[in-house]
Amino acid sequence: MTKTDGGPFSWQDLPVRDDLRALTPYGAPQLDVPVRLNTNENPYPPPPELVADLREAVTAAAATLNRYPDRDAVELRKDLAQYLGHGLTGAQLWAANGSNEVIQQILQCFGGAGRSALGFEPSYTMHRLIALATGTRWIAEPRGADFSLDPAAALAAIRRHGPDVVFLTSPNNPTGNAAPRELVEAVVDAAPGVVVIDEAYAEFFRPGTASALSLLPGRPRLIVIRTMSKAFAMAGARVGYLAADPAVIDALLLVRLPYHLSALTQAAARTALAHVQALLGTVDAVKAQRDRIVDELTALGLPVVPSDANFVAFGVSRAGEQPREAGAVWQALLDRGVLVRDVGLAGMLRVTAGTPEETGAFLTALKEIL
Amino acid sequence: MTKTDGGPFSWQDLPVRDDLRALTPYGAPQLDVPVRLNTNENPYPPPPELVADLREAVTAAAATLNRYPDRDAVELRKDLAQYLGHGLTGAQLWAANGSNEVIQQILQCFGGAGRSALGFEPSYTMHRLIALATGTRWIAEPRGADFSLDPAAALAAIRRHGPDVVFLTSPNNPTGNAAPRELVEAVVDAAPGVVVIDEAYAEFFRPGTASALSLLPGRPRLIVIRTMSKAFAMAGARVGYLAADPAVIDALLLVRLPYHLSALTQAAARTALAHVQALLGTVDAVKAQRDRIVDELTALGLPVVPSDANFVAFGVSRAGEQPREAGAVWQALLDRGVLVRDVGLAGMLRVTAGTPEETGAFLTALKEIL
Repeated sequence: MTKTDGGPFSWQDLPVRDDLRALTPYGAPQLDVPVRLNTNENPYPPPPELVADLREAVTAAAATLNRYPDRDAVELRKDLAQYLGHGLTGAQLWAANGSNEVIQQILQCFGGAGRSALGFEPSYTMHRLIALATGTRWIAEPRGADFSLDPAAALAAIRRHGPDVVFLTSPNNPTGNAAPRELVEAVVDAAPGVVVIDEAYAEFFRPGTASALSLLPGRPRLIVIRTMSKAFAMAGARVGYLAADPAVIDALLLVRLPYHLSALTQAAARTALAHVQALLGTVDAVKAQRDRIVDELTALGLPVVPSDANFVAFGVSRAGEQPREAGAVWQALLDRGVLVRDVGLAGMLRVTAGTPEETGAFLTALKEIL
Repeated sequence: MTKTDGGPFSWQDLPVRDDLRALTPYGAPQLDVPVRLNTNENPYPPPPELVADLREAVTAAAATLNRYPDRDAVELRKDLAQYLGHGLTGAQLWAANGSNEVIQQILQCFGGAGRSALGFEPSYTMHRLIALATGTRWIAEPRGADFSLDPAAALAAIRRHGPDVVFLTSPNNPTGNAAPRELVEAVVDAAPGVVVIDEAYAEFFRPGTASALSLLPGRPRLIVIRTMSKAFAMAGARVGYLAADPAVIDALLLVRLPYHLSALTQAAARTALAHVQALLGTVDAVKAQRDRIVDELTALGLPVVPSDANFVAFGVSRAGEQPREAGAVWQALLDRGVLVRDVGLAGMLRVTAGTPEETGAFLTALKEIL
């Protein structure tokens, strides 16, 4: 297709919404390199016994694949409730195609045109992008210099803006630090609308860090998001979920696309949940590598953000050195076969904790570069 | 959770968007009855050779399920282009979790707050509901008494409203009649924005009915939607797709959720496309039952809408009879183990063409009731 002026036709020539025109599609480069530490995946593939069960579960589901799946994913939600504990039931759980779809459903229901959502940046970029796509006004409040949240400033911002939705990522992505339980409690008390605690990386918490799940009783405007993409090593299966008051799930039913979760996805997620012990065994291994990265980068004299997640945000220059460009270090690591993430923080990069070998390759490459 | 007044807490007590409050969740009852002819599923389960290949494909995909899937589903889109023909390439195809997600992406991109979408009702209800969920103003224009579209009236409505998005379902759901190719051409010429031809049931066209795919060259605002839920007997796998100018796909990348399509979904869809001959073999069988329903109901003296789909819309009362309530006939059929769809058209029901046995059970039950 060419335009009447003879030039190539592009999306800019289509009647795309004006507020989308400044966007570029979200996503890290999907490069085929030996060591991929850029998208916070679990480095351990599903164990053989899970793959064998998945094979059987999918074969069973395939026999009726001509039929629509269970629209409400009742059995999966029961399994998720049992995994989370805290006395939760299936009526308090909801699942979708990745936590991105969960976030989208929340914003379609409680945000939208004429409404606002507030987040503390830097944080997970999709909160802002999905707010934009759903027509929700986005309010960005800054985190402190160390990426923590000052409780007084956070609560004042919420009172000042009165947002319909508050996002709080804990542990925060891309920085790795968690929000104290008392702060979450105070945020829910201060917020006039719903409060979303995005706990995608909660299984990687250090000892002593608490989940917001224990705050759910008596707080029907609190929503806790989780995912099977990280600790469960199921990024390829796309299963995100939330826990909240049953009233929240009833509200989301108004906007969810019917039959949004395929029979194969439901079967795969339930199979993974049946192998929770084996899958969460990888979490300890990943946490050990996370702590190793923090320790070794600190020993190198680089600034490091304490991490409750499966990744570490770090500065690429030592104090007093001529500052390095993050992009240059990113490229130098890639040249050595190690892909990390340039998350747009000046002078910083984010690296996912991999296997001991992958982590070692990253540390070796970084030392060479420094 | 109880409210301060002691009553149970419900979604109405949450700060749900005002424009959603009148809604009830979409979806037909999922009842376990012997003969299910209510959601236009293909009655034939996937053949054993497809299930065997699916088993292998999923096992292969499971080995790297800890990694995110191909974000752009490049290979699947190539396979879909090859299936559709018409000289299409993967760059002109886009896939998502059911055609509902495709529709949602289109409305997020070209609709939204301050914009409008127009449809000719009665038609597929999700067009209107997704418009609502995306904040797009919905304009309902009526079809004729026989559910066809008068070209002059349709074009006048488009010129009058100037909608940003036009939906035209062909064959129409729930009525089964297709839009002539000339009308589609004229609608694209008249519409100021994008035009979506929803061809979910195109594989069931009668001889002589044309797809809008042949109109794509030179029409970058035309989008044709298809699905693997019907002819491909893959409703459980949730794969919808569209064909359009590559510029349209570039635009959708701005709003699509990253990694929206799981590795399992991509594997399942590609496996089904490799078995296209076997799957489309079921289409002829279903079309024969569709024609049988039209013929037998016509012979019974019931009003029947000519159908290019895998379902038939019919009136439940003969001319001159005391009119029956559609809901009463729906219940009487259910009492006999046959589930059809009450689509909200006065005095009419919609029945899916099933196997010869299922179709026979429906016809026998209906004759008893009459």
